[in-house]
Amino acid sequence: MATGGAADAAADRRLPAVARGDGLAAIMRSAREIFAERGYHAASIRDIAKGAGLSLSALYYYYAGKQELLHALLEDALADCFRSCEQALDAAGDDPVARLGAFVQATVEYRVRRPVDSLLGLREIRNLEPERLEQFVERRDALPRLLGEIIGDGVARGVFGTPYPDEAQRAILAMCNAVAQWYQPSGDLTVTDLVDRYVYLSLTLVQHLPPARKAPSHA
Amino acid sequence: MATGGAADAAADRRLPAVARGDGLAAIMRSAREIFAERGYHAASIRDIAKGAGLSLSALYYYYAGKQELLHALLEDALADCFRSCEQALDAAGDDPVARLGAFVQATVEYRVRRPVDSLLGLREIRNLEPERLEQFVERRDALPRLLGEIIGDGVARGVFGTPYPDEAQRAILAMCNAVAQWYQPSGDLTVTDLVDRYVYLSLTLVQHLPPARKAPSHA
Repeated sequence: MATGGAADAAADRRLPAVARGDGLAAIMRSAREIFAERGYHAASIRDIAKGAGLSLSALYYYYAGKQELLHALLEDALADCFRSCEQALDAAGDDPVARLGAFVQATVEYRVRRPVDSLLGLREIRNLEPERLEQFVERRDALPRLLGEIIGDGVARGVFGTPYPDEAQRAILAMCNAVAQWYQPSGDLTVTDLVDRYVYLSLTLVQHLPPARKAPSHA
Repeated sequence: MATGGAADAAADRRLPAVARGDGLAAIMRSAREIFAERGYHAASIRDIAKGAGLSLSALYYYYAGKQELLHALLEDALADCFRSCEQALDAAGDDPVARLGAFVQATVEYRVRRPVDSLLGLREIRNLEPERLEQFVERRDALPRLLGEIIGDGVARGVFGTPYPDEAQRAILAMCNAVAQWYQPSGDLTVTDLVDRYVYLSLTLVQHLPPARKAPSHA
């Protein structure tokens, strides 16, 4: 972001309350909170700067405005979600059952880890400017496509018996996404149990067929 | 709303563009559209009046302000949702399978019928004033409780085999609610087929057990 030398020194002078490297993180944190609390339209860039312990001009050193901040927050959250899914799927290998489990686990854990970003994703995406919105939605829709491929592969291999793979995909994503709206890490249900149950429900939903057994012999 | 006589006559003079009885409906329609488009905070009461073909003072004849309008919209939508569920459940009788089907059908049809209200419910409830918010959320939470009772009853009677009735309840509600975010009545899937598939997925999720069959005899 900085161009070095004199520019760095000038930037340092403009950032009294926050150490250089922390400025970005402080702005993102503050913007996330204020967008979530008041909504994009009612959020003031001045309050976001204040929440980050920065002057308004220091904030503008990092971001051109509210729109760029919203975009950065949403992109950061989406990138985190993708990274988690991809890592989990890489580790799961080729088996559709393991892959569905990995996808559900990564999605549920992401929703638990980033509930505020999840709510922003639900409420504020529409406030992206048209071109950004279109690109964002296109990238985001890779997630349902990925889940759809996992389920389709399981059906093709005969391990998932659902007659409605498209609706099962939507149902699984909806139930995993909704975790952000109700799960309380301080409650009785641990994240591990939560994940186990959601993997179980997802496998139930796609009608995971147990491996064929030998027919009992009645000789 | 009117107090009759002179008040009615005065109100009539203030409502040139819209026939008396239509004023309320026109305001609700306009508020719904503008809240959905711009969000509660960015919505202007002046634009809502304009969208309804009314003067600002005519709008104030019906509603004290934006907060009252949001509250009326959300309450109206929730009442519609409850009415639909209750009618469907009354018709379904006592059988847990029929009751789960009726609940899912009513919820999915409601989400198809009122997608904009569904989005408002998702995004704008937090903008209700604290006391209104608390009462609204309490009333709304009767829906998951009702679904939980249906599932619990099915488990108790041995027709639903799920070991996770609470999570199944959340999953079913999440998948039905999400219909508002993607379903296009103009698309390939009819509402009837949509409902059939969601009822099927819900019964799969709770592990609806088929009626016991006689074991094959090998005499």
